[in-house]
Amino acid sequence: MCLGLRARLHLVHPLGFQTDDKAVRRAGLDYWKHVDVVEHHDADAFFAWAEGRRVHAFSARSARPYTAARYEPGDVLLFGRESVGLPEDVAARFPAWRIPFDGPIRSLNLANAVAVVACHAAGQVDPALYADPGPGADGG
Amino acid sequence: MCLGLRARLHLVHPLGFQTDDKAVRRAGLDYWKHVDVVEHHDADAFFAWAEGRRVHAFSARSARPYTAARYEPGDVLLFGRESVGLPEDVAARFPAWRIPFDGPIRSLNLANAVAVVACHAAGQVDPALYADPGPGADGG
Repeated sequence: MCLGLRARLHLVHPLGFQTDDKAVRRAGLDYWKHVDVVEHHDADAFFAWAEGRRVHAFSARSARPYTAARYEPGDVLLFGRESVGLPEDVAARFPAWRIPFDGPIRSLNLANAVAVVACHAAGQVDPALYADPGPGADGG
Repeated sequence: MCLGLRARLHLVHPLGFQTDDKAVRRAGLDYWKHVDVVEHHDADAFFAWAEGRRVHAFSARSARPYTAARYEPGDVLLFGRESVGLPEDVAARFPAWRIPFDGPIRSLNLANAVAVVACHAAGQVDPALYADPGPGADGG
């Protein structure tokens, strides 16, 4: 998805998964070697890098919907671990947003959550890409 | 995700996966038994059911962005197989939409695509759920 959106992937260590050749092959990530990846040694290294940047934190504990944020080119979308999300003290450093749900399940898995937010942000950052050629152009 | 959005899941056979207890347990779908699932014996049975309903087809071959569609309560979101998407003759029966990408990767995996579209549609269908309580309410 980062490739499709021309987004850079930042990974903040420690990771809950591996990114060596074997793990990537096993996960079927055929395009991994083309992904623009930056790794941060720990949270403090990420915070130092993020200083002065527009960071949006995503947390199921936020009350504000991700659709209320304004996304601009270069913005950083910050997600936590699959299992527990962002630590509260990390989310509190930045404007924080959630994906609203009203059913008994309160959060998406991480990959789905990133997809929802990143595609929504892409629509704001690149309106030309989201321009509608209109009916008759739908290939149908 | 269907549970989170209070959506009904329709499965059109033949399926490329199994939904028996063992398979569901292995996939870690703890909430599967709570999901409202309807199964259609084959594509024709689905088409008969869909007659008169508002169906949106999603296909990487469409030229129109999913954000240009109008979503209403009761609308049907129709996706194809993970590997090949919707057959062209199926997508051609309905208004068809895509998730725009401009990078070298042209489509999301199925779960992510469904998440992107379903959450977007939920925002239109249930604006109260997406209401923004404003800054200071972000739990930060």
